[in-house]
Amino acid sequence: MRRALVLLSGGLDSATAAAWAQREGFEVHALTVDYGQRHRRELEAARALARALRLASHRTLAVDLASLGGSALTTDLPVPKDRPHEAIGSGIPVTYVPARNTVLLALAFAAAETLDAEAVVLGVNALDSSGYPDCRPAFVEAMATVARVGTKRGAEGRPLAVLAPLLHDSKADIVRRGAALHVPWALTCSCYDPVPRGATSVACGRCDACRLRARGFAEAGVADPAPRQV
Amino acid sequence: MRRALVLLSGGLDSATAAAWAQREGFEVHALTVDYGQRHRRELEAARALARALRLASHRTLAVDLASLGGSALTTDLPVPKDRPHEAIGSGIPVTYVPARNTVLLALAFAAAETLDAEAVVLGVNALDSSGYPDCRPAFVEAMATVARVGTKRGAEGRPLAVLAPLLHDSKADIVRRGAALHVPWALTCSCYDPVPRGATSVACGRCDACRLRARGFAEAGVADPAPRQV
Repeated sequence: MRRALVLLSGGLDSATAAAWAQREGFEVHALTVDYGQRHRRELEAARALARALRLASHRTLAVDLASLGGSALTTDLPVPKDRPHEAIGSGIPVTYVPARNTVLLALAFAAAETLDAEAVVLGVNALDSSGYPDCRPAFVEAMATVARVGTKRGAEGRPLAVLAPLLHDSKADIVRRGAALHVPWALTCSCYDPVPRGATSVACGRCDACRLRARGFAEAGVADPAPRQV
Repeated sequence: MRRALVLLSGGLDSATAAAWAQREGFEVHALTVDYGQRHRRELEAARALARALRLASHRTLAVDLASLGGSALTTDLPVPKDRPHEAIGSGIPVTYVPARNTVLLALAFAAAETLDAEAVVLGVNALDSSGYPDCRPAFVEAMATVARVGTKRGAEGRPLAVLAPLLHDSKADIVRRGAALHVPWALTCSCYDPVPRGATSVACGRCDACRLRARGFAEAGVADPAPRQV
């Protein structure tokens, strides 16, 4: 069976990308990267999603990007809240983690080669991406070239494709696609700054990621079953 | 002062690349990646080199590529010994670490962005590289594109160059250049499988890396002061 390695963050997009890869007929293995994100909740969400989707395997790799600093997702810089939708996506916000998606894809290439997977799947999307440069088509294309020329698989003429099936989707498109694929939304967490509740935490409802998610569900006419504070 | 981030492995090539960057006028910061290499000796060598070269800073980041397996450098697969020079470089050897240089460069981009460095410098060379795909010009070019399109610096039109000054050099060329730059060769360790000696370990003299190094010094007519077993 053809194998794919999916980067699973625990959010809406990567969960949908994983379900998409299963529907495409891949045996889906997942990699989650603990890069020192303050929103540890998403690591729990990734584990729960891997189980619920019955993925073939799930592995978490740690790399301490937090020690480098430079981002509100890994340090105590405040996460912006309640920004109007017009502001989200104009300029690169403080939640940008330097070179994060390059690091994630590099680790995915390593895992894919050792699993003999022919594709790396990631859930990036360019339209509703908060303005991050490493969510744009030119970035995905550049990394596809790296996979082709810089890996043993590529050098041997075997495929190591980079598939970003949601790249040109809006959040509403992703919600519609995920609904058709029966993605267990309740298990996902997209929030940059979750709020403690009992033994776990819930989405804040106010950061850019929460606001993009809420608008996507609203536009798709789907109720979001994941718990949130606001 | 213009800053550069050098990937410092502790070997001949990266030490020369660091000294080259200093000569070019950069304030040189170094990043060493502990990816689970069995040859831990090189991590010591990197620290000693950073001190001897008086680099502006030196940081070690850990990421457990060993847990993925697939390489003689990270598992107990035997490291090939005493291979003839004709065999070295034909085909990709078992010492290839899946996607290693992609991971190293990705982490270097992250570190460079947080340091406000305008260049990432690495010591790869294509001619005497044991046949690794991630030491070839096409790979370096592809990662340069990633730095340009996938980082905040690049998106803002500020440079994040990928400089590989030794890319087209032979090992003998590198020894000559390093000698002119007064690289402290005695502190470097290029070996894939060092042999314990006292409280430290010394180069085996028999792996591909040791053999390429020995030939380089011999061709350049320079004595290699680093200790080795054979």
